[in-house]
Amino acid sequence: MISVGGVPVGGGNPVTVQSMCDTDTRDAAATVAQIRALCQAGCDIVRVAVPDTDAAAALAAITESSPIPVVADIHFDYRLAVLSAENGAAKIRINPGNIGSREKVREVVKACAERKIPIRIGVNGGSVNRSLLAKAGLREGMLRSGLEQAAMLTDMGFTDICLSFKASNVPDTVAVNRLAATSPGFCFPLHLGVTETGTNGLVKSAAGIGALLLDGIGDTIRVSLTAPPAEEVKAGIALLKAVGLRKEGVEIVSCPTCARRGIDVIMLAREVEAALSDIKKPLKVAVMGCSVNGPGEARDADLGVAGTPDGGGVLFRNGEALRTLRDPADILPALIREARALAEDS
Amino acid sequence: MISVGGVPVGGGNPVTVQSMCDTDTRDAAATVAQIRALCQAGCDIVRVAVPDTDAAAALAAITESSPIPVVADIHFDYRLAVLSAENGAAKIRINPGNIGSREKVREVVKACAERKIPIRIGVNGGSVNRSLLAKAGLREGMLRSGLEQAAMLTDMGFTDICLSFKASNVPDTVAVNRLAATSPGFCFPLHLGVTETGTNGLVKSAAGIGALLLDGIGDTIRVSLTAPPAEEVKAGIALLKAVGLRKEGVEIVSCPTCARRGIDVIMLAREVEAALSDIKKPLKVAVMGCSVNGPGEARDADLGVAGTPDGGGVLFRNGEALRTLRDPADILPALIREARALAEDS
Repeated sequence: MISVGGVPVGGGNPVTVQSMCDTDTRDAAATVAQIRALCQAGCDIVRVAVPDTDAAAALAAITESSPIPVVADIHFDYRLAVLSAENGAAKIRINPGNIGSREKVREVVKACAERKIPIRIGVNGGSVNRSLLAKAGLREGMLRSGLEQAAMLTDMGFTDICLSFKASNVPDTVAVNRLAATSPGFCFPLHLGVTETGTNGLVKSAAGIGALLLDGIGDTIRVSLTAPPAEEVKAGIALLKAVGLRKEGVEIVSCPTCARRGIDVIMLAREVEAALSDIKKPLKVAVMGCSVNGPGEARDADLGVAGTPDGGGVLFRNGEALRTLRDPADILPALIREARALAEDS
Repeated sequence: MISVGGVPVGGGNPVTVQSMCDTDTRDAAATVAQIRALCQAGCDIVRVAVPDTDAAAALAAITESSPIPVVADIHFDYRLAVLSAENGAAKIRINPGNIGSREKVREVVKACAERKIPIRIGVNGGSVNRSLLAKAGLREGMLRSGLEQAAMLTDMGFTDICLSFKASNVPDTVAVNRLAATSPGFCFPLHLGVTETGTNGLVKSAAGIGALLLDGIGDTIRVSLTAPPAEEVKAGIALLKAVGLRKEGVEIVSCPTCARRGIDVIMLAREVEAALSDIKKPLKVAVMGCSVNGPGEARDADLGVAGTPDGGGVLFRNGEALRTLRDPADILPALIREARALAEDS
């Protein structure tokens, strides 16, 4: 287990959601504003790029004001990692492919060890060196690259480490993480992500990260999207809920639409979700188009409605029919009222 | 392997994408119009609900005009299954939980066997009978329900079967399909899906179906969304591409945005994807914000651009830098021109 500014990662702790700012890190005010928005969206840990000394200097103000731990992302220049550690970074992310010699790594380790700051060794498929790639192939090459860097750190007496292995392709990402998780003696927390996901990032990340989480692999995740970072956080939380690792707030269960539907399932599901988005208590609400799948499949929902052919609906609670609503306009208010009553029950 | 109106499912054939119409099946014209749109989006097999005899009668006109095989979805009334088989359905989907006695099933089997129409036994978590559920739990209960129905059909000499096991929850769906795929003697094609996915259907389906496909499980898929069916088809195709099972058309690889970006990656990635959506040849195009991850991670792309700090970009082809574009306005046209040139190469 590592502690990222007080947020535990690994050791069986709940899987956390991360994102990365897309502001100019040198603009501390803009970066802090974005971090606050990400925190509001549910982000547990945030990363910022530190491409130069001005960005590293701005970290002092950013980490001072940030409501969540800030990770400094470092490429090429180990001195930026040292500066980031001095300026309040809660974790340093380095890439073994481009940080340089053992001596430079030792400086980073020293700065982190003094402050009990963990280091993430972030291996990206694209930055494995060519000779290792040629010798071992992408998956084994990524794995060895990460393990060698980890060994270098542990040899220096530094074990406050987590690792990530991200390829731009789902099968490689899943395979290398499975290799890592089953490596003899591998005991580091794993940060999961699929990188460079393009315009289908949500599907790629859900498939790749999801497959690993379903196998019990992974301690913290980032859904990388070519989209505003708050979307990454929402997607990350949705994914943790999907694989059963987070149960919080209202989960809408609704049928795909078909010719049997008596009510407008799409519209109603979205309205119910929006109206109940503030509820934190886990609550399963079913919106079913008809009575074929409705009552049966909504059985394990706390609350639900199944459309009737005339556009009304039968309201269910804990598997029991409550009453039939003949007027379609009554359905949404009734669901909201019942959901709020259940949410207040304790 | 089964053949759904000439489309092979199982036996190592390419995994196909399905969706379901949300039109009123009795309105043959509207249903055929939607099927044509789904076909255009890339749908391989389409399902329609057959809730009554009028819908079953309309199937004759629908299957006559449909450009892709049409599956009839039957609940409760075996006579609708028989009628659907007579009216040109390419496959019949029945739910073991609600079709009734052995005699009724025999009638369906007879109608299908005469016309070489396969049957999908579609087990939904919500419709497993309560006593089996209490005895065996959801996963084992779903599995037994499907296997018992399959045994009933094979006992009648009918083996033209595929199965599906859909729960509304991802871990259950993945677990029951893994149980099925590893059952001794299990040799039926598997149709994969997560049902009643609610408003997070894309994430749930990508995680659940994706995890199974990555394990080599699954022969045809439906991404159930509470959304227009063409979205299901697009998501299904994106998922097959994500897990490496379909390589067709342009795949955009792009970095998540961060402070290092020199170009607007989000905008450019979307523009490139839209401009090249007609290309069928597999082509990997990388849109990278900067030179940190850019050239390295775009190495296996056929074509790519990496932003420069001044807003221009370096154009890459097959891992080699082609030229630097100083004017940001030149990037999109240059990518499109190079991509089309590569697509025409054979």
